[in-house]
Amino acid sequence: MNANKDEPYALYYWPNIQGRGEFIRLALEEAGAKYIDVARRSEKSGMGIPAMLQLMESGSGGRLPFAPPFLKCGELVVGQTANILLFLGPRLGLVPGDEAGRLWVHQLQLTIADWLVEVHDTHHPIAGGLYYKDQKVEAKRRATDFLAARLTKFLDYFESVLQANPAGDQFLAGDSLSYADLSLFQMIAGLRYAFPRAMKSLDGSYPLVIDLHDRVARRPRIKRYLASARRISFNKQGIFRHYKELEA
Amino acid sequence: MNANKDEPYALYYWPNIQGRGEFIRLALEEAGAKYIDVARRSEKSGMGIPAMLQLMESGSGGRLPFAPPFLKCGELVVGQTANILLFLGPRLGLVPGDEAGRLWVHQLQLTIADWLVEVHDTHHPIAGGLYYKDQKVEAKRRATDFLAARLTKFLDYFESVLQANPAGDQFLAGDSLSYADLSLFQMIAGLRYAFPRAMKSLDGSYPLVIDLHDRVARRPRIKRYLASARRISFNKQGIFRHYKELEA
Repeated sequence: MNANKDEPYALYYWPNIQGRGEFIRLALEEAGAKYIDVARRSEKSGMGIPAMLQLMESGSGGRLPFAPPFLKCGELVVGQTANILLFLGPRLGLVPGDEAGRLWVHQLQLTIADWLVEVHDTHHPIAGGLYYKDQKVEAKRRATDFLAARLTKFLDYFESVLQANPAGDQFLAGDSLSYADLSLFQMIAGLRYAFPRAMKSLDGSYPLVIDLHDRVARRPRIKRYLASARRISFNKQGIFRHYKELEA
Repeated sequence: MNANKDEPYALYYWPNIQGRGEFIRLALEEAGAKYIDVARRSEKSGMGIPAMLQLMESGSGGRLPFAPPFLKCGELVVGQTANILLFLGPRLGLVPGDEAGRLWVHQLQLTIADWLVEVHDTHHPIAGGLYYKDQKVEAKRRATDFLAARLTKFLDYFESVLQANPAGDQFLAGDSLSYADLSLFQMIAGLRYAFPRAMKSLDGSYPLVIDLHDRVARRPRIKRYLASARRISFNKQGIFRHYKELEA
């Protein structure tokens, strides 16, 4: 469907946060793919947030995205983070070649997506449309449960998946890197930012997950990307947020 | 991958609720596919919940599901609701034939999955592991926001998708039924159970969505299924729950 192989992918996502867009950026960066991060470009050049909102409203061929991120490739507009990765995976060489392997990687990605919602809701348990300060009491309660019960449930799961991989414990699926590995890296990086104390105390219990995180961070293209201005810093507008009181 | 075409699909999901399993059941039922609802069968026959938990722990070929539902087809075990539908879609004739169409249907399904989490969290905004009665105050606040801001956002979106479909407004994607249409039916049915007053007042504003719901309910196989004992009733253990106080 990508008729012109030289045409860059166009990624549409909010310009000031890593958010869900980051899972796409990591895949594009690891593959060395050409892409334009449209909403971060200048409005003068016809891009920026207005271009993103315009495409969101018009869609393509009657197909409307519900929310950013979405990716444009030729005339195709693909929305939903995990679905974008499903589309990009084979094109970027970030999934196994067989159907069973691709379904498995996608299954892992969807589990990461569920986990991410739970992380988001630690600071926004009542409403995405309200400020954190307006749901601080509830956030404290939800974050306490997340740290006590959910964080280890997900970490246990991914540690077990690495342990159970018949091709070895270096990657989640098979013996080479997939987009799910990149996404797991991002989860650990984000959780360390948001909950440094909890993550420090858990570090030793998840050697395979932490090792995967560290190896991803050292991959040449990822390393360059993380050190570049293209990597937006974690901040208090994103999905991963550090509020000291939520960890106390 | 389904070596023996006569071997039924085995669905694994909690036996007493519709929950996420219902999205899979509707697809299998509409297609007239043979399937075994394993956890609802007798333990004496080697099935029931123990068989489900056992497969969840062992996985298949090192691939572990995080949670029910998961589907077994030959040696393949596929988890995550939307991923199971991605797998079943082409096999059951419930997706368009081209890649762009399949991605679009999956994108819609993932948006429905997001919506479903928000419905669940109206009664469990703090922790899935706590009872409703232990988070009633927060649930009231979250449900109020859901009814004021989120419900119409999703309904508006799906109404627009039907309106924008270049092949006509009868289906979400193209000119024939997909698994996303079945899932949208289930959302409307569930929301009508959980929030009857709100849904009644909104009914007239979403004629295409409501018409799609009604047409799905009249499809011969779905109609027979809904009238059968295989269709578990909505209840207060499921994702869609009716608590009068949350709508007041």
